[in-house]
Amino acid sequence: MAAMSNTTNKPKVGVVVVTHEGAADALVTAARALLGNLQGVAAVPCAMADEFPTLVDKISRGCQLVDEGAGVVMLVDLHGSSPFHACMSLLDGTRSAEVLCGVNLPMLIKVATIDRTRQQPNQIAEALCDIGRRSIRLGSELTGRVSLTRGSP
Amino acid sequence: MAAMSNTTNKPKVGVVVVTHEGAADALVTAARALLGNLQGVAAVPCAMADEFPTLVDKISRGCQLVDEGAGVVMLVDLHGSSPFHACMSLLDGTRSAEVLCGVNLPMLIKVATIDRTRQQPNQIAEALCDIGRRSIRLGSELTGRVSLTRGSP
Repeated sequence: MAAMSNTTNKPKVGVVVVTHEGAADALVTAARALLGNLQGVAAVPCAMADEFPTLVDKISRGCQLVDEGAGVVMLVDLHGSSPFHACMSLLDGTRSAEVLCGVNLPMLIKVATIDRTRQQPNQIAEALCDIGRRSIRLGSELTGRVSLTRGSP
Repeated sequence: MAAMSNTTNKPKVGVVVVTHEGAADALVTAARALLGNLQGVAAVPCAMADEFPTLVDKISRGCQLVDEGAGVVMLVDLHGSSPFHACMSLLDGTRSAEVLCGVNLPMLIKVATIDRTRQQPNQIAEALCDIGRRSIRLGSELTGRVSLTRGSP
């Protein structure tokens, strides 16, 4: 990563949340409700009926919306799905970009705090990948409490 | 885990998806659209304005809806949030239960295929935890492709 000053007018990496049905909008709405603001983030809901070229077109327009010149990270819900393949098809060399599967809310909370003007999309995606994985934790890990009073099959 | 036959009338562990705003409904809708069916799963959307007792009541009713006698797993979006603490407050010994943070769609896909009649909630939550973490992957890990043509800050 090149050493550069963090000026407010530097382009920041955009984020596009891509999911089946309305989860993308719901995740971005939840993050905005929690944080008050979340700039440079677009939600792309994919309908089950969408043909592949339609998905590519929708996601591409989402990328255009948030790409200030520093590229984009596409956060998609499910590896192997059509929206995932549509995201992957956009790693075509037209912009600096990375795809991350398994999107969850903690990734979007991190998007709000990470400096997206200083790192490339693949570096930001790696940081979000790490946060996303570490955010998946059992309640009993956090308290040592497990409730096993009845219903043990 | 006790060795038992897998009969269809055995109670199965219920799953309650708890999120800020409408992501819970959207995730369950997406999973149902992909799978065609998803039994014993309830969605509990939590409004930002909900007081803590309201959250506990909502989530408790979700648990009651899907608990067939084998207990429940609560999948919540964000560790440390009010919905998370409301879920944790329900590990009070009234039913066999576990909480898992960082819910994402691959966990719900796994819910559809895992045998929820043979394992306890904490065992199912551990399996979903593992799937959830492993589902978070970079596109470049999957193809070796990273697009870095321009916009490197």
